[in-house]
Amino acid sequence: MQRAILALSLVSAAALANPFSNATLDAAAQLQQQAMQSSAAYQIVEDLTTEIGPRLPGTAADMRAVQWAQARFKAMGFDKVYIEPVQVPHWERRAISAQVTQPYPQALVITALGNSVGTPESGITAPIVRFATLADLEAAPAGSLTGKLAFIDHQMERSRDGRGYGPVVKARSKGASIAASKGAVGLLLRSVGTDSHRFAHTGVMRYAKGIAKVPAVTLSAPDADQLTRMLQRDSHVELSMNIQTESFSPKTSYNVIGEITGSSKADEIVLIGAHLDSWDEGTGALDDGAGVGIVVGAAQQIIDAKLKPQRTIRVALFAAEEIGLVGAKAYRDAHKGELDKHYIAAEADFGAGPIYAIHSRVGEHALSDFNAMAKQLESLGVKRGNNNSWGGPDMSVLPPLGVPVAGLALDGTDYFDYHHTPDDTLDKIPPAAIQQSSAVYTVFTWLMANANSNLRPIPLPKS
Amino acid sequence: MQRAILALSLVSAAALANPFSNATLDAAAQLQQQAMQSSAAYQIVEDLTTEIGPRLPGTAADMRAVQWAQARFKAMGFDKVYIEPVQVPHWERRAISAQVTQPYPQALVITALGNSVGTPESGITAPIVRFATLADLEAAPAGSLTGKLAFIDHQMERSRDGRGYGPVVKARSKGASIAASKGAVGLLLRSVGTDSHRFAHTGVMRYAKGIAKVPAVTLSAPDADQLTRMLQRDSHVELSMNIQTESFSPKTSYNVIGEITGSSKADEIVLIGAHLDSWDEGTGALDDGAGVGIVVGAAQQIIDAKLKPQRTIRVALFAAEEIGLVGAKAYRDAHKGELDKHYIAAEADFGAGPIYAIHSRVGEHALSDFNAMAKQLESLGVKRGNNNSWGGPDMSVLPPLGVPVAGLALDGTDYFDYHHTPDDTLDKIPPAAIQQSSAVYTVFTWLMANANSNLRPIPLPKS
Repeated sequence: MQRAILALSLVSAAALANPFSNATLDAAAQLQQQAMQSSAAYQIVEDLTTEIGPRLPGTAADMRAVQWAQARFKAMGFDKVYIEPVQVPHWERRAISAQVTQPYPQALVITALGNSVGTPESGITAPIVRFATLADLEAAPAGSLTGKLAFIDHQMERSRDGRGYGPVVKARSKGASIAASKGAVGLLLRSVGTDSHRFAHTGVMRYAKGIAKVPAVTLSAPDADQLTRMLQRDSHVELSMNIQTESFSPKTSYNVIGEITGSSKADEIVLIGAHLDSWDEGTGALDDGAGVGIVVGAAQQIIDAKLKPQRTIRVALFAAEEIGLVGAKAYRDAHKGELDKHYIAAEADFGAGPIYAIHSRVGEHALSDFNAMAKQLESLGVKRGNNNSWGGPDMSVLPPLGVPVAGLALDGTDYFDYHHTPDDTLDKIPPAAIQQSSAVYTVFTWLMANANSNLRPIPLPKS
Repeated sequence: MQRAILALSLVSAAALANPFSNATLDAAAQLQQQAMQSSAAYQIVEDLTTEIGPRLPGTAADMRAVQWAQARFKAMGFDKVYIEPVQVPHWERRAISAQVTQPYPQALVITALGNSVGTPESGITAPIVRFATLADLEAAPAGSLTGKLAFIDHQMERSRDGRGYGPVVKARSKGASIAASKGAVGLLLRSVGTDSHRFAHTGVMRYAKGIAKVPAVTLSAPDADQLTRMLQRDSHVELSMNIQTESFSPKTSYNVIGEITGSSKADEIVLIGAHLDSWDEGTGALDDGAGVGIVVGAAQQIIDAKLKPQRTIRVALFAAEEIGLVGAKAYRDAHKGELDKHYIAAEADFGAGPIYAIHSRVGEHALSDFNAMAKQLESLGVKRGNNNSWGGPDMSVLPPLGVPVAGLALDGTDYFDYHHTPDDTLDKIPPAAIQQSSAVYTVFTWLMANANSNLRPIPLPKS
């Protein structure tokens, strides 16, 4: 009896604490059901990756992607569709090849990192020095790599939340300059990835000022293993590589934006986003066609249901995320005057899902909103997460300016098998996963557009 | 009681029928135990794929592989090591690229089939006509493909025994000439493979006499799907491709042979083999480094155990299997005079295993030998198979001349994921699988070298 009373009082407390009106919750349930029967998100990725394919920032394909997204948004029935210019760097990969010349002559599979300079036209040939980690390279004495190629063989660990990425990706962004500072003529990096297929993973790198720019390439995992086996047999392994890349003047690309205008709070914005650009060797299906499908598909559910949100729902497809969150920074600057009207922001940029948790970064007083949201999404397998989210790569530029964010955690267990490789293609997207992810985004977006709480001020780490 | 007597009499009959002496069986058990604790087979593939890598017939790497194998055989302690010359065709792949030019411009992943001619230096551009199967292409009216590229999109089915290969591989060998006979300027073939990765599978093709030679290429599965999606949206899809290949005059390569000389029946031969050559884009780990490891590893177990077989055990590593069983045919011709002394032959050329069944092609009266052998190998998960084996691709040239063969069936469920792709590398070999396979070959070889039965005459289908 005691327990029954307790249970009853908990239910009442939960009902009282629910920050969403019954009408909002009823509509959310209807939207969830509708989204779980819709193939809209998958269809969007299919269309983008088929009709545009790779869309490297600054290229003609990038421009076609912008036109494609605009046309799609207009056809979908957004209340407003517009684009905002973004100046984007423009770098392109040309011919890339590598061969071990001795002691075991054979070709290796490599690719250039984004921003990498090329070799002279005739290529370079140099002996290889292996390091287990970037820290080991950093510890090499000055001058010890003169005339050599530095090979970092750090293997990434697989995880659902991608925590294996951080410890290895620094070698990608900074390794070339650190190697060059010791005299190296190039960087060979084991791909930042979790697969064992013959694909090298690309990604952006940076040169430090005042240090010679040397070519930076990655090896596929099987090729990194092959080099290591060769070095176990013979400490003198020589590699010849020919890297041709081209850097152009910056180009104008665009963030593409669609809005469902709010009813009673039209000036307040629920921002959901993904990035439209991709690397050049795959078709950008998981990265980030899936994100485009998830967030655009979510908006489509709300439009198709003819439901009017209180706040304005804004879908932003950002330009040039891959080469430094360029579109997101342009958005932040262009919208500086209305950032205080951004109720919350969230980005899908970690594959197709499914979504297993909802993280947030909101005021402590609003945490109950997210508990209630997670409860609403329980039947889709979603749990309440933590309050430490940065909202996704692009959206991470907003919390420092006080904007609340959510992190709808996509299952990324396999994400780094395909990330930044030629193998990032449509067949890697499980239709059921992206359907669930888009359904979660649909419910999230709808609840946020109609919630009663104020989510500010947000907690931020002391800098 | 009736049943107990029956069971007893069956046991007695089996004991009586056992074609192997107790000493032979004891040694087989010892060898099996030893092989199941040995990493010899894996180590051989590791060394071959690391120190030589790809070894396309007629190339410098092919010659290095022959030297490598000879040196390895000598170091192992074979009683005899020798090579036999084989004239091999010599074809090489050069630069290969393809782009859809309209309506959805983007690069596709393709590769040339072995023997394919190239395009003019400037490439070719033509519209695509899709066919679901080779039969559909064959049914196309004469002249209907003039100036077009024929695209065959037949998907291979996965199976343990590779039965999905036959129905699709004809399109690879004959598709180009059939397409050209209808006026096509080239063949685009969905890769003969079971994976969905961005690898095109190569393989040998032939031109029919009197028909124009047109370039023959394969698309990776994701790229074939991509083309099909494009054609669903727009019937006019145009592809530009540039294929550069080179045909050279035939070269002299070698079959590499090692022998453990028999004691009482030295002139009788138990022949086990694999092929030493490989395609050029992977390191030939599963095809057929694994087979090399399995059969050479088996011989190594017997040598290391210091056991003397009654018959001579001959290990043959054949040249140029990939381009038409060239080494095997040379072996057949060079050994015509002693084929009647070949007690039995078996080849490992279907990946790393494990082995799940023992098939054969021997006289009906000797079937009990194979039942007994399967019983001996039961603890390794091996079952008795059928009597319809051809002994493997290379060995298939021997039964028509009366030579008994065995087929030690390797589990090929994943084999066509990697077959003839850049992704056929060492990491695809499960150490436990190749250990079991080599252990089975060890026991098989030992039992055959000491069996009492005559395996002839063998049953052959009427031709």
